Amino acid sequence: MHFTKWNGCGNDFVFINAMHMDDLKPVLDKCERICDRHFGIGADGIIFVLPSQKADLRMRIFNADGSEAEMCGNGIRCFARWAYELGLVSTRRFSVETGAGILYPEILDDHRVRVDMGAPHLEAAVVPTTGFSGNPVVSEELVSSTGSHYKVTCVSMGNPHCVIFTDNVPDDEFLKKEGSAIEKDVHFPRKTNVEFVHPLGNNRFRMRVWERGTGITMACGTGCCATAVAAILNGLAKDEAYIDVDGGTLHISWKGGDSHVFMTGPAAMAFEGDFTPELI
Amino acid sequence: MHFTKWNGCGNDFVFINAMHMDDLKPVLDKCERICDRHFGIGADGIIFVLPSQKADLRMRIFNADGSEAEMCGNGIRCFARWAYELGLVSTRRFSVETGAGILYPEILDDHRVRVDMGAPHLEAAVVPTTGFSGNPVVSEELVSSTGSHYKVTCVSMGNPHCVIFTDNVPDDEFLKKEGSAIEKDVHFPRKTNVEFVHPLGNNRFRMRVWERGTGITMACGTGCCATAVAAILNGLAKDEAYIDVDGGTLHISWKGGDSHVFMTGPAAMAFEGDFTPELI
Repeated sequence: MHFTKWNGCGNDFVFINAMHMDDLKPVLDKCERICDRHFGIGADGIIFVLPSQKADLRMRIFNADGSEAEMCGNGIRCFARWAYELGLVSTRRFSVETGAGILYPEILDDHRVRVDMGAPHLEAAVVPTTGFSGNPVVSEELVSSTGSHYKVTCVSMGNPHCVIFTDNVPDDEFLKKEGSAIEKDVHFPRKTNVEFVHPLGNNRFRMRVWERGTGITMACGTGCCATAVAAILNGLAKDEAYIDVDGGTLHISWKGGDSHVFMTGPAAMAFEGDFTPELI
Repeated sequence: MHFTKWNGCGNDFVFINAMHMDDLKPVLDKCERICDRHFGIGADGIIFVLPSQKADLRMRIFNADGSEAEMCGNGIRCFARWAYELGLVSTRRFSVETGAGILYPEILDDHRVRVDMGAPHLEAAVVPTTGFSGNPVVSEELVSSTGSHYKVTCVSMGNPHCVIFTDNVPDDEFLKKEGSAIEKDVHFPRKTNVEFVHPLGNNRFRMRVWERGTGITMACGTGCCATAVAAILNGLAKDEAYIDVDGGTLHISWKGGDSHVFMTGPAAMAFEGDFTPELI
């Protein structure tokens, strides 16, 4: 079976063309093994392209453990370039059916991909978050279960984010201890992703993320969007931000209110290959 | 450039046919990137097959950081099956020039590969180890810098090993703390690999390794050989042992004295592919 390996800011996926595939099961049965970085191909997940009744193409994304994800900001950027280079679409902007609705990625002249990520949700009940006095929750006090005091801003990009501006860049130990404590804090009934963000000036921010249910990752597309929205809400940026994550840089723009968030970033192919699902 | 990805007990390598390659430099210049598990192909190292003046084939192995290694027990098993399947040799036992001399791998009927790993060196000055009363060093007392007391057996398989039999299987935290302390202990002038070994009965052992200069790995071929030799010297096995490591099982046989150690284990292909060194 042929595959192509792409990454967006180090968030990496095995891409398989399922436009004419009757059954994904032989691949999904081996999802964990295929994603294993020593015994398999190695990836954060597998992404399939399929025909769609509602859009130009359909994207399905599976995590390394075989569970299906609704969407992935880094994944859809790679998806866009890959589908375009495969010749499955002929325009550089097209529609993609995802578990989070229809999205419209666009391939720019510099090969980066811009994606309309929709409007952020700031109402506390929608994020969801509870127990803060302000609504939306912008720079509110939170005392984590470790006893640390934070000023947090809560944003949903379809999934909940708790953004914290800091004076330095947290190391792995801090990120694990404080991130996992806030992820499970009582203020977040559906748990939360946690972003620690160090402002660098000139609309630039260094962000490290603790992803809900996953832990430390090299990049989180929706986390970058939430970070930019939080920076703008806190007066740290005007209507755009460059977010440096462990695996690269994303550009985020947002004009406030109900306007949509646009995420622009890299998508890179590493190699292509062939494997046999039954043998891997 | 075409490559094939193989692993031996999870110790994984990108294999490149350099029989007709004038210059390895374009690949070696990108060694770290190629071995990167998110941005590149992902591997513990790169192995090349080249022509040899002294043997049927020559194997060169490079670590992920671009440094050249002399030999690798897991690597040469994969090398043997790969070279045979490529048709570069026509016999199932052949000679391979390595940085540690000429070795003779043999592909068995069950597709495992057996390798003559040479005789172990037990003399303290050769291992090298210093400051113990016994020579060879078999079940001698060592108090590590952490204050822990151990009974250690020291064996060289071309590289130094300190084998410790334990009542349980160490977790990562213990392995890192105690392994790194013993690696740099004053008893080992060239530092040492450290094996913690839990006897399971019937010549079977569960081993976890702290590799000198590398840390925790899924498998260490010479470490398994040293473990079996130490088990035999301590009367815990007769002339063979099955060593369960994190990534699989190796069978080791040794008849004592100057006889050679034979290592038998799996070699598995995961996938093959193509990449462009300048673009990766």
